[in-house]
Amino acid sequence: MVRIVVDAMGGDNAPGEIVKGAVDAVSRKDGIEVILVGKQDVVEKELGAYSYPKDRIRIVHASEVIETDEPPVNAIRKKKDSSIVVGMNLVKNGEADAFVSAGCSGAILVGGQFIIGRIHGVERSPFGALIPTEKGPAILLDSGANVDARPAHLVQFARMGSIYMEHVIGISKPRVGIVNIGAEEEKGNALVKETFPLLKACDDIHFIGSVEARDIPHGGADVIICEAFTGNVILKMYEGVATVLIDTLKKGLMSSLRSKIGALLIQPALRASMKDFDASKLGGAPMLGLNGLVVKTHGSSKAGEVSNSIIQCVTFKEQEINEKIKASLRVESEK
Amino acid sequence: MVRIVVDAMGGDNAPGEIVKGAVDAVSRKDGIEVILVGKQDVVEKELGAYSYPKDRIRIVHASEVIETDEPPVNAIRKKKDSSIVVGMNLVKNGEADAFVSAGCSGAILVGGQFIIGRIHGVERSPFGALIPTEKGPAILLDSGANVDARPAHLVQFARMGSIYMEHVIGISKPRVGIVNIGAEEEKGNALVKETFPLLKACDDIHFIGSVEARDIPHGGADVIICEAFTGNVILKMYEGVATVLIDTLKKGLMSSLRSKIGALLIQPALRASMKDFDASKLGGAPMLGLNGLVVKTHGSSKAGEVSNSIIQCVTFKEQEINEKIKASLRVESEK
Repeated sequence: MVRIVVDAMGGDNAPGEIVKGAVDAVSRKDGIEVILVGKQDVVEKELGAYSYPKDRIRIVHASEVIETDEPPVNAIRKKKDSSIVVGMNLVKNGEADAFVSAGCSGAILVGGQFIIGRIHGVERSPFGALIPTEKGPAILLDSGANVDARPAHLVQFARMGSIYMEHVIGISKPRVGIVNIGAEEEKGNALVKETFPLLKACDDIHFIGSVEARDIPHGGADVIICEAFTGNVILKMYEGVATVLIDTLKKGLMSSLRSKIGALLIQPALRASMKDFDASKLGGAPMLGLNGLVVKTHGSSKAGEVSNSIIQCVTFKEQEINEKIKASLRVESEK
Repeated sequence: MVRIVVDAMGGDNAPGEIVKGAVDAVSRKDGIEVILVGKQDVVEKELGAYSYPKDRIRIVHASEVIETDEPPVNAIRKKKDSSIVVGMNLVKNGEADAFVSAGCSGAILVGGQFIIGRIHGVERSPFGALIPTEKGPAILLDSGANVDARPAHLVQFARMGSIYMEHVIGISKPRVGIVNIGAEEEKGNALVKETFPLLKACDDIHFIGSVEARDIPHGGADVIICEAFTGNVILKMYEGVATVLIDTLKKGLMSSLRSKIGALLIQPALRASMKDFDASKLGGAPMLGLNGLVVKTHGSSKAGEVSNSIIQCVTFKEQEINEKIKASLRVESEK
């Protein structure tokens, strides 16, 4: 049984979509127990709308909620009875294996590092956002946790990302690329120039060199390495460009009778071809290198993404990802 | 008469599309004289295919070509008779006002700084890529020239970009935003945190604070400030995501008879709504802060983009952009 804490109060669509996602996950997959953390009465009421196996979802009460605009360090320190703090303490105390939240990234980040804590030897815990590409999902890390990271951190990101992609997503020998502004080794900023030879020297990953941002959506690498400022820019550009293009397309389709009829005709084909680019199918961003697993889903997550993120935790646990990360750190320190 | 040197040998479609673009520009706009620099016989042959006012296009011979994969500093030093070096020398010697090329960015960058030279007081010359947004074009600078720039450089980029957007593109009080990973002032990496208060203190620009990458395609700012690594990632993500989505869309449309019929019906509406996102209409990326003007167009430029880039140089000259940049530096140094 994998025990997964779900933050019932986090995200734009909490608690409705979160609770719905939890119910969906336990009915889709055996071997999961979900612990919904949040205001007892609110969560109970939402849960009451569904029929589900009662022994596989339980509620743990937390009276407070951390809001998106709160300074994260303060929020984690002061709101001891918030869903994030209570939920993460369950993981810390061994009462649960993983924590899933659509809540405030900053608080999740701080809580992950200070409540759950990093695996001994891991210097920074990155967010690894799963992004769609023409060749299937890739992991982008660090997608938002540690700005101004150092070369040694990026090397650990590469190792942890490779383990995740191989054992959770199922890509054998995942291609690791470092985000760069040209293909050649001598290109790049100081951080990239310093990190490049370190990655090249790792014989436990499949390093393919630089990956230009342009090639990321084409599937140029499976594990995309960068520090968090760049990673966040990549992730947000992906969302922004896709949203604007799709909105423009939709407006165009609605502009005349002729195009409206056309829109009806193309709809099924379009839906089929675009479904590989639906990021919500991929589940949330795991925060790697912690003593447990934390998964951050989009703030705007609906039930489907929540449910996928819960199920993703099962593979993480079954595949013993943290044990594999520890083993890779032993290899590193023996060098 | 504005005299514009055009590198006839640079880019994937040289010399054919370049020469075609030059002919197009002189027939579309009065007051331009184009100097095509390249191999005399090759350019002459291309030009022979068109009728055009003979007194407004002339050829200056250059026997060498700098290839994309050459180390730029070396190439500029050794290939004294290349189209880039010969063309830039025409600007340096006052025989021309501007230089347009679709050739190797690195060589254009090095040539711009070392042959044409920076305006006294300008510390770095950024590339300012013009990018399409929902609210019209925005300038992204630095989009690729100076990695690891310092805060003072970014402040100059903001001033030069504002002058360009106001007087060349015609946006009054252009909104200046610094690329950041959150909206709040305390967010960001060390560079952004240091630059933010400096921009806030500039009373000659309209600084609106942070702009998240997600908001860039929505038109969140008119002048988008970042160092070149981030800028290049933004530019390349824009291209990459757009290409992948449009390719996927096209594949979907061709997947069944029904969708093919639909595609025919939506085509005119789609073309109309997508035309605002056609980057080639905006012309190339000006390299700002030089004693003259250098415009870098896409390596894959066709005649339309070349022609637009040539015409863009006329406004630059007529609006006396470099004189305005010099004046803004005087304001800066008097503070």
